[in-house]
Parts: sequence; C-alpha cells; structure tokens
Amino acid sequence: MLPKEIQNFIEEFSRLPSIGPRQATRLAFRIIGSGLGKVSALADALEGLKRIRICSQCFFVHSSSAASAKEGSPSANLCSICSNPERDHTTFMIVEKETDVLSLERMGKYHGVYMILGELTKGGVLEEYQKSRMSVLKKIIEKLPEKKAREVILGINPNVHGDLTASLLKRELSEHAQRISRIGRGIPIGGEIEFADEDTLGHALEGRN
Amino acid sequence: MLPKEIQNFIEEFSRLPSIGPRQATRLAFRIIGSGLGKVSALADALEGLKRIRICSQCFFVHSSSAASAKEGSPSANLCSICSNPERDHTTFMIVEKETDVLSLERMGKYHGVYMILGELTKGGVLEEYQKSRMSVLKKIIEKLPEKKAREVILGINPNVHGDLTASLLKRELSEHAQRISRIGRGIPIGGEIEFADEDTLGHALEGRN
Repeated sequence: MLPKEIQNFIEEFSRLPSIGPRQATRLAFRIIGSGLGKVSALADALEGLKRIRICSQCFFVHSSSAASAKEGSPSANLCSICSNPERDHTTFMIVEKETDVLSLERMGKYHGVYMILGELTKGGVLEEYQKSRMSVLKKIIEKLPEKKAREVILGINPNVHGDLTASLLKRELSEHAQRISRIGRGIPIGGEIEFADEDTLGHALEGRN
Repeated sequence: MLPKEIQNFIEEFSRLPSIGPRQATRLAFRIIGSGLGKVSALADALEGLKRIRICSQCFFVHSSSAASAKEGSPSANLCSICSNPERDHTTFMIVEKETDVLSLERMGKYHGVYMILGELTKGGVLEEYQKSRMSVLKKIIEKLPEKKAREVILGINPNVHGDLTASLLKRELSEHAQRISRIGRGIPIGGEIEFADEDTLGHALEGRN
C-alpha cells in the first residue's frame, strides 16, 4: 500500500547497518514532510561522499578535491594526518575504525600516525583485506631510516576478539618495532571500582601508576 | 580534520530527528566503505521521494507517477485508500502519523478512511496546519449524502496530550458525526495485569467486554 518510491527508500536505507526498517520508514515520512529542498540537500550530501578517497598509507578518509589541488605530488593520495610533516611518522597506532581515529584526534595528545585495520571478526583471525593492510604497514616501516617503527600502539578494543587479535599483531610486528604497546585498560574516569568487572579490575591493578 | 564532504553529510543527516551526529558519522563511513554504487543507490532512493504527493483528503502519501496515469480524474490527488471505492467513505479514523496508518492497515480490520492530523504538541492545542486539516475533514463530511459521518474514531495515542486533544476533537466534531469513539485502552496482548499502571487498569476495567 506504500508508493514504490517509499518502499525503495526503506529497502535501501534499512540495509545500512544502524538503520532498521522501522527507522527507515519514519525517516521517509519525516523527509517527505520537510519538503523538496530537504530531499535535495540530503541527496547532494550523499553524492558528495563520492569525492572521498581512502588514504593509501593509513586507510583513513580524505577529499579528492583537496588532493587534486596538489595532483602529482607524493601526498596526493594521503589523508591530512599522513601528509602532515609535523606528525611523528615513526610511531603507528593500529585502530579498528575511522571513528576511533576521530576520538583519538579529539583527545589531541597523540602525534604519531595511524593504521585502520577494519573491524575485527570473531576468533582473532585477520580477513584478507586486513592482512593486506598489515603488509602495507610493514612496507611503510621498512622504508623508515631505521627500518623499524619507534613504537606500534595497538589501539584495539579490550574484549575477547581484541585480545586475540592483539596477540596476533604483536607476533607479526615483533621484528618491525622497537616497542609494541597496547592502550591501557582500567576503570574509566567517572566509573566506580564497586561496579567494575573482575577483568577490568585485574587490568587496573596491573596498570597502576 | 574530516573532509568537508563528510562534515556536510553529518550536518545534513544529523538534522533528521532520529539520527544524531554520532550515528550520522558512523553512517558516512559505512556508506563510503560500501562503494560508489551504494552512494548512487541511496541518492536515487532519496530523489525518488520527490515524486511523493500528499493526499488532498487524508494527507497520507501517494506516488505522483501513479496519479499522473489518471491525470484529470477526480482521484488524481488521492491516496490509494481515499480513491478505493470499496472503502467505507462515511467512517473516518483520525490518527497522528502516517506510520499509524501503516500499522492499522497491516491489522486489516478497518475499512473506513483516515485523516492524518500530524503529531500532537503539548497542551492539547492544535497547530494552524492541524486546524486546517480539521476544516478539510469537516468539508468532506458535509459533502456526504447525510452530511454526517457514520462514525469518527479517534486513533489518538493514550497519553496526557492525547487525552486533551481527544476531548477537543470530540467537541469540534460533535455536530459532524453520528458517533465519536476512541480506540480502546487496556492491557496489551502478552502484557500482564501485575505490571500494568493504574490508569491502564482503570481503562481495562471500564472497557471490559
């Protein structure tokens, strides 16, 4: 009974991982109620994503319109972090997602570069594209003057899959870094010891300082 | 530090009522990760919403491409419910939202027509566009052979604003309908008397049958 245009909208948008059919349906009616201008603004915003490119070193995003300004230069395919000469290009943090980079950059205390590994699958085994990203990282490290990273920080979430993957990455990179560390685990600021689980408490005790 | 295209996407999509900036950010990265084809499919789905028209009687949606097939006919501006001669056009259900119509149609036991009033604001006062929709409803009713609706059902959610609005609508429509009713309130199927609040229990007792 819904017009096919709305059915199509619901089908396409509910395939996005964080939007279910109910939210997609409500979205359709909200957007229709906001008028043609809103539809165009949203469609233009979507089309704009076509100009996004993926950094060839760390796999974060950058804009092709920014890159084309310096086309031909070696930094044309790099994001704003990898092409920034003021960052420490001998320290690498491996994270799962682009949004992890955003949170860490917001914190503002990390000055190295990143490697986005992609979300971990269960079992601590790397997928093919993740293995190829690790090869990219190793090649970047081999081109450093010392042929070793000063440090690789594993910015991997503290959970079972994360722990398995962290061990795997530590083994893989043992020859490629002077130091391999993992972001600290413990009681979050504002959290309470009383309500922390045993694993967290264990890490908080080990990581005391 | 995010490319302006992604910033623009986040800004536009996080203005939608059910999507916050965090979800919009995650969406942007997911869509980018899905490739250009996905971007086009979503943008096309959005553009399709431009062909959606609002029914001149009940304010539900219909497709302009379907309407244009019978352009010039009196039903060109009507949705599939209002233009269906098999529906009972003397019984009206007033609901707040398009999605309420979807749920009621899925149930399949209501054969009258609808009037979408728009979401209620606090205080039980109708907004200007809602008053004008009520005028449309009254004009439709005045054109009926008996100049009165057989029944107007208030399909208004049972809460404080809904109760206030229901009283208002009852007064407004008292001359225009042989009967004005409100959808039953009580214990939902699968719910438990033990956990029902007092108001719900009161209505369940009154509405016993």
